Amino acid sequence: MISEKMIQMTKNSSAIRAMFEEGKQMAAQVGAENVYDFSLGNPNVPAPAEVKAAIEEIINEEDSLMVHGYMSNSGYEDVRAAIAASLNKRFATSFSENNILMTVGAAGGLNVIFKTLLNPGDEVLTFAPYFGEYRSYVSNYDGILKAVEPDTATFQPNLEKFAQMITPKTKAVIVNTPNNPTGVVYSEETIVRMAEILCAKEKEFGISIYLISDEPYRELAYDGVFVPYLTKYYHNTIVGYSFSKSLSLPGERIGYLVIPDEADESGQIIGAANVANRILGYVNAPSLFQRVIAKCLDAQVDVAYYNRNRETLYRGLTEAGFSCIKPEGAFYLFVKSPVEDEKAFCEAAKKYHLLLVPGSSFECPGYVRLAYCVSYETIVNALPKFDMLAKEYGL
Amino acid sequence: MISEKMIQMTKNSSAIRAMFEEGKQMAAQVGAENVYDFSLGNPNVPAPAEVKAAIEEIINEEDSLMVHGYMSNSGYEDVRAAIAASLNKRFATSFSENNILMTVGAAGGLNVIFKTLLNPGDEVLTFAPYFGEYRSYVSNYDGILKAVEPDTATFQPNLEKFAQMITPKTKAVIVNTPNNPTGVVYSEETIVRMAEILCAKEKEFGISIYLISDEPYRELAYDGVFVPYLTKYYHNTIVGYSFSKSLSLPGERIGYLVIPDEADESGQIIGAANVANRILGYVNAPSLFQRVIAKCLDAQVDVAYYNRNRETLYRGLTEAGFSCIKPEGAFYLFVKSPVEDEKAFCEAAKKYHLLLVPGSSFECPGYVRLAYCVSYETIVNALPKFDMLAKEYGL
Repeated sequence: MISEKMIQMTKNSSAIRAMFEEGKQMAAQVGAENVYDFSLGNPNVPAPAEVKAAIEEIINEEDSLMVHGYMSNSGYEDVRAAIAASLNKRFATSFSENNILMTVGAAGGLNVIFKTLLNPGDEVLTFAPYFGEYRSYVSNYDGILKAVEPDTATFQPNLEKFAQMITPKTKAVIVNTPNNPTGVVYSEETIVRMAEILCAKEKEFGISIYLISDEPYRELAYDGVFVPYLTKYYHNTIVGYSFSKSLSLPGERIGYLVIPDEADESGQIIGAANVANRILGYVNAPSLFQRVIAKCLDAQVDVAYYNRNRETLYRGLTEAGFSCIKPEGAFYLFVKSPVEDEKAFCEAAKKYHLLLVPGSSFECPGYVRLAYCVSYETIVNALPKFDMLAKEYGL
Repeated sequence: MISEKMIQMTKNSSAIRAMFEEGKQMAAQVGAENVYDFSLGNPNVPAPAEVKAAIEEIINEEDSLMVHGYMSNSGYEDVRAAIAASLNKRFATSFSENNILMTVGAAGGLNVIFKTLLNPGDEVLTFAPYFGEYRSYVSNYDGILKAVEPDTATFQPNLEKFAQMITPKTKAVIVNTPNNPTGVVYSEETIVRMAEILCAKEKEFGISIYLISDEPYRELAYDGVFVPYLTKYYHNTIVGYSFSKSLSLPGERIGYLVIPDEADESGQIIGAANVANRILGYVNAPSLFQRVIAKCLDAQVDVAYYNRNRETLYRGLTEAGFSCIKPEGAFYLFVKSPVEDEKAFCEAAKKYHLLLVPGSSFECPGYVRLAYCVSYETIVNALPKFDMLAKEYGL
């Protein structure tokens, strides 16, 4: 009687909610400090001091009507210009404020761009494993998400399969690097080859294929790894960015889209995205935080904290006998389940109060995701539990 | 090639953008102080002092990870409980935090509830004149918006026509009181009769019809007028609220939905709305401002300022010979055009640098909307221009 699509969606999301509830129950029974919750991608490193200083400066020095008021649906011009200048400086791009659209986080940005691009039945490709919400974002606009099967040796995109899956119905490709859930950074070689494939297929089919780069983890990269800026490699790239992780502001819902001039129909896309932002009910990205991030474009959370977690957890898990790719970015580890049925493995882990997410949620069964955006103590205390779990499986 | 629906939507919204650009051009030519822009519903009364105090208190006293972090998609439990308690005190309702879903403004809330309720082809009724964005919000989910023609004598809903337009496909009715664009407050008599009609039609067709009350202007009511709280009159009422006008925070995108227990399928609707909030990409209402408004539930903008504008503008316009209903709420006046073609009248007004919105935008041609959320000086200085305009039409 209510939306049938939503009834279905609500059923599907009960698994995650069930785990969340289970964690809360577990914490009530054994104490929160004895539950090792690696299930949530919620930053545990606080926002840098610049954020608080920026808020204080703005509410004390800027006009309240301007700070909290409506602006253009695309966002404040000065904020968009500051972002464009920052990107140009970092990546030698040549964006102006016209190429930047402020959004309600990356999730809002992705919805805006899918609403702008997709006609019913259009196909969007992505690479397994991938963030499960993409399915909903594409389905919201009656598009069809198709996942390229993973190359589990490297978790770089499987480009051979990719090339085979592109059809005249392919409207967009969405990638996420550094990647959730693997922590892998797509290499420059991968990106160059992907761009070649896309250009060839655009020509072959006489279509435009937009490469959407979902980049909430861009600033979380370790060991000086190079994270290519995709607009430099492929003309039809659109970037979705979020400050949720780079400034630890996930609740504030602040991000932006980059729609470069060199994208096909860029003027039409920019105009339509602006309207989509309004009619989807975002209207505009939250105003105070637009002004805050403009003052914090050079600030960053304490990435060293995540890095220590990464090193400690990776070492501990591999020493215990588990196998996984060492992540170069984001705050996730994607561990091979010692048995094919990774859901059973997640169940077994719960005995030790270890909460893990099955790879099936990312269309990659046989693996589990650990989010290490937790306290260092949680990791140190969890490692003996992982040892016991490994022994149980004869590792 | 991009979304055909969005290309159409973008064309339709160019009229408003054109007026906005025209106003900017005009200001450049004759000086902003000589342009009398009554076109935008952007509050000109600053947020009350409590807002700034709340921001400072929160960033100084609360944990940054909690303040800027993820919470349940429905919002912070303590914030939702505070809102429920405030409503219960004011309206003798009996809501709990479970009935409150924090949203990205009222526009976000309306999108969430339409996504939750509508199946393709479902009909939503509203009363002309109405806020034009409703068309997009309903169309986003493939619903069909149908407008009941206005009763221009009172601008109370035309309930006779309303009763005739309800069919088995009617899923929802959306009302907005105090009303944009008329400033009329729907009377208790109107609401009681509307509820009777809805109950009878629910019974006749064996369906549920949800009454969605869009209430951004609830606190802007003058002369002590009674603004009924609709959940008290009809079981299937869902309220969409926004702090955009009550606290002058339109850019911050903060509001909530009330989904009462007595609504049919309320449990299912609450669950699905929670998921819709997430997958539409809002994820959650902006976190800092959730906490801010919880501290400001008894605060209010300076309504007396709007009231002085209302009295001055209404008196000036009627003395000049224009006719309009005296508004009891919101910050709009809906004036009868002296000629049938109100767009021509708006064009004529531009000669005096008066910017008005044609009633056609609200599906009510022959009238024009004036937003009086402008400075008092603008009104005082505009009145001689309205006099000249009136003389031109022989009023």
